[in-house]
Amino acid sequence: LAIGDTSPAIVGLACAQLAPTFGDLTGNRSRAAAAIRDAARAGADLIVLPELCTSGYAFADRAEALEYSEPADGPSVSEWRELASEHGAVVVAGFCERDADGAPRNSAAVLDADRSCTIYRKTHLWDREQTIFVAGLQAPPVLDTAAGRIGIAICYDAFFPEVMRGLALAGADLIAVPMNSPAPVPPLPPNAAPMSEIVLALAAATVNRVYVAQADRSGPERGIEWSQASAICDPDGGLIAGPVSGVGLLRATCDLRRARDKVLGERNHVLTDRRTELYATAAANARTPDSQPIKEMVN
Amino acid sequence: LAIGDTSPAIVGLACAQLAPTFGDLTGNRSRAAAAIRDAARAGADLIVLPELCTSGYAFADRAEALEYSEPADGPSVSEWRELASEHGAVVVAGFCERDADGAPRNSAAVLDADRSCTIYRKTHLWDREQTIFVAGLQAPPVLDTAAGRIGIAICYDAFFPEVMRGLALAGADLIAVPMNSPAPVPPLPPNAAPMSEIVLALAAATVNRVYVAQADRSGPERGIEWSQASAICDPDGGLIAGPVSGVGLLRATCDLRRARDKVLGERNHVLTDRRTELYATAAANARTPDSQPIKEMVN
Repeated sequence: LAIGDTSPAIVGLACAQLAPTFGDLTGNRSRAAAAIRDAARAGADLIVLPELCTSGYAFADRAEALEYSEPADGPSVSEWRELASEHGAVVVAGFCERDADGAPRNSAAVLDADRSCTIYRKTHLWDREQTIFVAGLQAPPVLDTAAGRIGIAICYDAFFPEVMRGLALAGADLIAVPMNSPAPVPPLPPNAAPMSEIVLALAAATVNRVYVAQADRSGPERGIEWSQASAICDPDGGLIAGPVSGVGLLRATCDLRRARDKVLGERNHVLTDRRTELYATAAANARTPDSQPIKEMVN
Repeated sequence: LAIGDTSPAIVGLACAQLAPTFGDLTGNRSRAAAAIRDAARAGADLIVLPELCTSGYAFADRAEALEYSEPADGPSVSEWRELASEHGAVVVAGFCERDADGAPRNSAAVLDADRSCTIYRKTHLWDREQTIFVAGLQAPPVLDTAAGRIGIAICYDAFFPEVMRGLALAGADLIAVPMNSPAPVPPLPPNAAPMSEIVLALAAATVNRVYVAQADRSGPERGIEWSQASAICDPDGGLIAGPVSGVGLLRATCDLRRARDKVLGERNHVLTDRRTELYATAAANARTPDSQPIKEMVN
């Protein structure tokens, strides 16, 4: 079923929604490892775990984040590497990284079946993360893995259509999104629409014709409830798995050839139909939110 | 309630879902005028009508489109101008324009209460439109109107997050989307998610913190059924009106100050949080869909 020389066509995908216990590094590693084993035994080639799934999320400050951080060759990533190799699967999982300068990073590790490891550091920091983590300087990557061309975004990264588009343009067939999405306080009023994390995943899948696989978390932590917005979206914008309440494993079989076909109908193409010369114009016209746009009179 | 010198804060919005009869210019103008009057009497300051609402959509070819086209100072736009002036409202409506070179355009007219008129010509053409219309060369505009700072996109334009982001960056508080969205053939399988036109409107509203007001059409035409995806979305990503089946008028009261506040929570801002230097990198890394991305090893 391979297309070209290396990239697979049919991929078993799993997104694990976990409920880490804040600061329980050993217990959280066990929970993550168990989820990886369960998913692999169920046939998953690609397994996505939540953001910061070894440490928990709600650090009081940078010092506390460092207390629960580990280097990229630390015990969590090392265990995931062994599991990926053992099961011939690709693992994408979030952890609290201590970088070579001793600074905390909100990172995702991508462990390929060949034991290679890539670290991505979150570039769009949400709320108090700005006081805790150093933001990444490298754009979200696209990796050619044993489970296909995988783009990575961490939670609030995926809020930005520029990020998801950039990953699709760089060749991602599937975008894996480790996530810890705090539920709004107070809760939003009842609405006919699904929650925004699901809407944004569906929209990114639709406009880029990619799979989107997001793994959110569950379990209350220091007063935070979570959106529990784990979801798998297909390139037609179908919601093919999730969301789920509590701990759970979302699964889907993905035909990545669908994501490599960017054609809509008989004459359209979601990437080449872009009028980039006009978007440059729009950017040049951009004003600060409080300034007055100039009235245009086209006719 | 005005903010600054000219821009209103509270705007009565209406989106009319109409069912034009193909080629019945006189009848369709009457239907459009009646919808404008009804909306204005119900308190609307801004009235959005569908794409190509005077001619219908399913032209056999360019010659037939020209048969039902009219210049930008033709009877439809002239009538809308009178109605806008009479009711002190802003009208956004789609029509088949014959330009000064005699070419057909898929255009939207924006008639302000002060009798000014702006024409926008659709820049992203869907399917057979490519064989019929000449695409616009000017980016979708943002207009400072009596009903606020209004961005314009026509149907498939709004599929592109670059378009909606560009309008928000250029200062739009509300994006008006005249639409004729053919329903998929065969129908998509049942899905837990709302239809994609609604998902994309909600996503654009959420990530840009703008109102999105789309007016789709109804009524079978030459074998085409329509998505009937008229909707009003608020800057929190709430679906506050629509969709509706058949002919109908969606209404909402919009507080445009909400769209001028781009802040999320305590520390985030949907426009200034963008890491544009990284998106430029992603664009530079962009490959054709069939090429192999280079494996990146960040660590």
